[in-house]
Amino acid sequence: MAAEPGCSFCAIASGEKPAAMVLREAEVCAFLDVRPVFKGHVLVVPRQHVADLDALPSSLMEPLFAAAQRVVRAQQAALAAQGAFVAVNHRISQSVPHLHIHVVPRSKGDGLRGFFWPRVGYDSDAERDELARRLAAALRP
Amino acid sequence: MAAEPGCSFCAIASGEKPAAMVLREAEVCAFLDVRPVFKGHVLVVPRQHVADLDALPSSLMEPLFAAAQRVVRAQQAALAAQGAFVAVNHRISQSVPHLHIHVVPRSKGDGLRGFFWPRVGYDSDAERDELARRLAAALRP
Repeated sequence: MAAEPGCSFCAIASGEKPAAMVLREAEVCAFLDVRPVFKGHVLVVPRQHVADLDALPSSLMEPLFAAAQRVVRAQQAALAAQGAFVAVNHRISQSVPHLHIHVVPRSKGDGLRGFFWPRVGYDSDAERDELARRLAAALRP
Repeated sequence: MAAEPGCSFCAIASGEKPAAMVLREAEVCAFLDVRPVFKGHVLVVPRQHVADLDALPSSLMEPLFAAAQRVVRAQQAALAAQGAFVAVNHRISQSVPHLHIHVVPRSKGDGLRGFFWPRVGYDSDAERDELARRLAAALRP
């Protein structure tokens, strides 16, 4: 397994560094975040070193995100969670440069203000359409 | 394409309801959120009706998350974003019951406090290990 020297998540994936592991498979492992947003907060990571979402090879997309889906289900089954918050910080706010998916168990009234950030608007429809046009152009194969 | 009557994202995916579309492919489309956290905030959705992350079939994992990855790259290329916040609200805080991945462009100092929520701790190693044990058991195939 390709490991990056000094990477703490590579060390966890190889078993060199201890963690409260919940899933360990050929390509993916998952363990408890040491500083959980809520108890039972899991990090799902590729076992090989992948710096960030941009670097994730296509072949690992399904194994990685299917593992996150299974963790969501396990939090519902094992912790009576009613839902989850599933998130990747890409580069900005990414504390460890080894791709990790946060899966945070959620319940009604838990107080998580994840998506109650202030929202902005577009100054005009023209501004919005221009942004959409630029993104669409960048997305063209 | 299987559409759910009354679902606004099915209506956008079929072209019945207008949206600032940035990507439309066989299985996936992506459009600007009308109330962006930051300008250029995109929602990536499966074109067929999928209620939430739990309901996402394995066959759509790669197309959907690879599209989110491409949107991340497009925000960097087209909007000079330095990173992104990629998130799914699963059931709790999920405003539209049609699975959607938020891809929010980010830059240093943008003020998004996404992961600066208060963190809790585990009361003891034993509590942490017991939670890990329950999750691991629920994740066993």
